[in-house]
Amino acid sequence: MPTYTHGGDLLTAQTQYGGPILDFSANLNPLGMPESVRHAAAAAVEEAIHYPDPLCRALRAGIAAQSGVAEEQVICGNGAADVLFRLVQAKAPRRALVTAPTFSEYEQALRSVGCRVKYHYLKPEQRFDVTETILKGITPSLDMVFLCTPNNPTGRIIAPSLLAQILRRCEALDILLAVDECFLALSDQGDTPGLAPYLKESRHLFLLRAFTKSYAIPGLRLGCGLSGDGDLLERMSAVGQPWPVSGPAQAAGIACLQETDWPNQARKLIQTERAWLLEQLRTRHLTVWEGQANYLLFQAPGRTDLKARLLEQGILIRSCANYVGLGEDYYRAAVRPREENERLIQALDAVLGGKS
Amino acid sequence: MPTYTHGGDLLTAQTQYGGPILDFSANLNPLGMPESVRHAAAAAVEEAIHYPDPLCRALRAGIAAQSGVAEEQVICGNGAADVLFRLVQAKAPRRALVTAPTFSEYEQALRSVGCRVKYHYLKPEQRFDVTETILKGITPSLDMVFLCTPNNPTGRIIAPSLLAQILRRCEALDILLAVDECFLALSDQGDTPGLAPYLKESRHLFLLRAFTKSYAIPGLRLGCGLSGDGDLLERMSAVGQPWPVSGPAQAAGIACLQETDWPNQARKLIQTERAWLLEQLRTRHLTVWEGQANYLLFQAPGRTDLKARLLEQGILIRSCANYVGLGEDYYRAAVRPREENERLIQALDAVLGGKS
Repeated sequence: MPTYTHGGDLLTAQTQYGGPILDFSANLNPLGMPESVRHAAAAAVEEAIHYPDPLCRALRAGIAAQSGVAEEQVICGNGAADVLFRLVQAKAPRRALVTAPTFSEYEQALRSVGCRVKYHYLKPEQRFDVTETILKGITPSLDMVFLCTPNNPTGRIIAPSLLAQILRRCEALDILLAVDECFLALSDQGDTPGLAPYLKESRHLFLLRAFTKSYAIPGLRLGCGLSGDGDLLERMSAVGQPWPVSGPAQAAGIACLQETDWPNQARKLIQTERAWLLEQLRTRHLTVWEGQANYLLFQAPGRTDLKARLLEQGILIRSCANYVGLGEDYYRAAVRPREENERLIQALDAVLGGKS
Repeated sequence: MPTYTHGGDLLTAQTQYGGPILDFSANLNPLGMPESVRHAAAAAVEEAIHYPDPLCRALRAGIAAQSGVAEEQVICGNGAADVLFRLVQAKAPRRALVTAPTFSEYEQALRSVGCRVKYHYLKPEQRFDVTETILKGITPSLDMVFLCTPNNPTGRIIAPSLLAQILRRCEALDILLAVDECFLALSDQGDTPGLAPYLKESRHLFLLRAFTKSYAIPGLRLGCGLSGDGDLLERMSAVGQPWPVSGPAQAAGIACLQETDWPNQARKLIQTERAWLLEQLRTRHLTVWEGQANYLLFQAPGRTDLKARLLEQGILIRSCANYVGLGEDYYRAAVRPREENERLIQALDAVLGGKS
């Protein structure tokens, strides 16, 4: 079986620690799952004796209405990662550009279809921001460009005006621009529509979105994609099984769409707690990037054992050693409610105080 | 959006009929879902604030123990159809053989990777049985052979001794033999281990299995594959997202493994009811094949409107018009509890009595 390197692998952590874990490795809404969503998913289990709607009609209609796009422009999947793999399999690009660092599944999906992957390195001295220099890196030989805003693991948002420029360049060169907005709702730009308004005019844009983070339902598996290219969406349906989204996940998604204020409420908590956590980390001589999302990237110079040492105290953070462009001493921590954040800082003190 | 042609599309049927539907189009355990499975899935919704185990460790260990194979030989997916698409994407065959008729997703998956599909036609006058003539059709140019036992939609079991011969021929020619055993537990050979014992010695065999049919949980999406080829299983993990099986589906699967007698109980009901239904259909001058599973294939000579006419009475059967090798007047109906089967027959009488 393959090695699993993402956050959220509680089972392995629990086995190693031997007890319950406080999880900062998965970047989920710190308010958890809305009660209405929990009810809807549990009620849908009763209906699981029937096949789920293969076309996710009610859910797609709701997403379309909320995003201001047509229902035909929405595709749902077994988590955003399922939509991502279908996208890459349907597009079958030969050359693609990804930033370094970024979420590793873009590259995984691209390599699974034999695509050559080119890295656009983001610079720590520029806060890992995507800048106008990326425009030069978008060359005619490319078939696809992947961006993530806010980026994982840096938490940095790409400026909307720059995204518009990048999209225009991709259109001019007939390149598909895939933008992952999975963390947008919990970020400092959570009150904006993201790039959805561009879908009216552009067939070169694909938006990846998830309910996983905004509503803390990673266990149900529900993501979606938005595109103005109907042929592409049709091919995406054809490269995978016909019933991608379970009944409980569809019901949960429909319930999420009613809880429009849930990510907004979380954002207020996140902004307060993120500022506190950032300050606390900096006070402890860690290099912290000014993330704009519900997680923080930091470097503990020379300390490659931080994840392992924190796990000894039942705290799980994400090692960023396997992100292209980051080193062995980079880590990512989710922004959680104050009590949990305090436990993280206490555990850090125990580790750093003992050895640094 | 693509056209959906499988059974179980209740939403479309309900919209057309305007009321609740009695579903004979999906071939599910007529006893429904065990109460323990319902509880386990609903309880797992509470845990959905965490990612599901990406490697499905507990579930795979349970399946392995029950099937008499090693845990490393088991892969789980978002329904058996997900496992099927991953298998085909990982193997990337250029030429494959499928029977006609059979479940259309084998061909869908094969075509999605550009594979050429060759049909081995089964003959109605031979009860659509797979016979030794298939051995001649298994030629060195093939990379894969797909079989389904009992076959969908014919309900006919392939003789185990013939399957062993086919496997030996595939091994000799270095062809991967994929056998779909999704309906085996509800069939007349439900008390046998199927082909699992051959996995000890063969790397050329892949078995597809599902919980969907045996435990009537199509809405949860849970299937699995068994293989002796570790490299193939690793590639299958790499061609799709890392969290294929939701938390509720994993919990449901683990609960199913405790309900070992559930498919056995259903089988007794199925055998009694299938004999009754077959007799009733034949009495009405329909051509019925002697299915050995939980559904029956029949022909209503010249009547291509049967599905539509039954739907006017709130009864949904499966039109088999889109199966390669069958005509417009072929249909499939699940074997349900007596009361439901009687309603099917009454509705048929209303349709056939009025027009035949």
